[in-house]
Amino acid sequence: MTSRKDRRHERLFVIEGVRLVEEALRSHAQFAVAVYNPDQLAATERGARLVAALGSQANAFAAPPEVIAAVSETVTPQGVVAAVAWPEVEPAGRGVQLVLDAVQDPGNVGTLLRTAEATGISQVICVAGTVDVYSPKVVRAAMGAHFRLPIAQDVTWDEAPTLLIGADNVYAAVASATMPYYAADWRQPSALIVGNEANGVSVAGLAVATKQIAIPMQGPVESLNAAIAGSVILFEALRQRKLGRS
Amino acid sequence: MTSRKDRRHERLFVIEGVRLVEEALRSHAQFAVAVYNPDQLAATERGARLVAALGSQANAFAAPPEVIAAVSETVTPQGVVAAVAWPEVEPAGRGVQLVLDAVQDPGNVGTLLRTAEATGISQVICVAGTVDVYSPKVVRAAMGAHFRLPIAQDVTWDEAPTLLIGADNVYAAVASATMPYYAADWRQPSALIVGNEANGVSVAGLAVATKQIAIPMQGPVESLNAAIAGSVILFEALRQRKLGRS
Repeated sequence: MTSRKDRRHERLFVIEGVRLVEEALRSHAQFAVAVYNPDQLAATERGARLVAALGSQANAFAAPPEVIAAVSETVTPQGVVAAVAWPEVEPAGRGVQLVLDAVQDPGNVGTLLRTAEATGISQVICVAGTVDVYSPKVVRAAMGAHFRLPIAQDVTWDEAPTLLIGADNVYAAVASATMPYYAADWRQPSALIVGNEANGVSVAGLAVATKQIAIPMQGPVESLNAAIAGSVILFEALRQRKLGRS
Repeated sequence: MTSRKDRRHERLFVIEGVRLVEEALRSHAQFAVAVYNPDQLAATERGARLVAALGSQANAFAAPPEVIAAVSETVTPQGVVAAVAWPEVEPAGRGVQLVLDAVQDPGNVGTLLRTAEATGISQVICVAGTVDVYSPKVVRAAMGAHFRLPIAQDVTWDEAPTLLIGADNVYAAVASATMPYYAADWRQPSALIVGNEANGVSVAGLAVATKQIAIPMQGPVESLNAAIAGSVILFEALRQRKLGRS
């Protein structure tokens, strides 16, 4: 159910647990198949509501715990596993866009998707070399962001500029840059490039960027984790946009 | 070498790898014992320099790979493991202090220590219920912050207020608060309380807090991971202090 090749060919991804399946139903995601254990789910009120909702869903089947354990990737399955179609969310216009340039750790990418959703990012572009955003670890860490964020995957740096919707500035996060991230005007349509954990933004990414920004630090810390750095910048962008509007 | 009881009784902690051992030497940490594989380390210039430095260190012993593997907690040991005394770093005055209120995930605590160092936090107070800051996973995630940050551990909420050095405001991060984190004046001496991943700041912590702050969000994200939330707030505090000084 979860080999990369199969998932990508079918454009399906696997979600587990009450919360993610609730999100999928709320977003009218297309279910290829769902298996659930009514007894286990009915132990909570929220689970019981989910059982009722799945009952009216095509391709959803009550199944014994062994079946759910067999398709689950987690050690203690929450009683429901489903394969759903990749959501197709239309980019929400200009605003701030996020480009992941070969970010490889699934936890970092999942966290960045969650932050992107929390900060109202209009589109996430994953340049080739970035971990599969529909892989189970990314999906778990993103906690439902996939259903509401426009995400483009397997984009080359040749294609990326045409996908970026009217960004006045494209900022690359570069540890050695001299411009602080808070000196950027994030109220203008813009994009942020977050680079690979070990090598930073690629040469091709730097060529697309119009400015390089860094997070000034006080202590002798070498560099921040990609998820922390990206989140700090994206929340500053949101802070500026909220204050700019008030 | 690494059971919690032993480590705490001896006030020792275990560090692994070239980078952390370099940090320990640079900070004049007290080595109880270090074992290293000269052949493995000498494969890099940096490793060779470390071998030379360890050669003049008491209690540091060249050892075969099997010995290092036996005391290492990682799958592929980097060729050096040491047990060093808990650093005693004096609190650096007022500024911004960080209080961890039963934060339990080692990765979150390690990341918050790294952020605390990067943002020039003057002291970290770990209230009882917080994961042991000297446990191996925290030490790995903090990447050397232990050697430069003043950290108080196993503090009760009764003791915490006397440890907080002249904080004009104590802010509790509470998802439902109405005051945005950027409305706080972080140029004043202050403290930030980050709470437990599932339950947030405790009742006792809320009683010590003078104000509650939240991170305003755009999307329907339930709440942020403790490490992300804490980092976003601490970097805003640093941004204010850097701008206030310029």
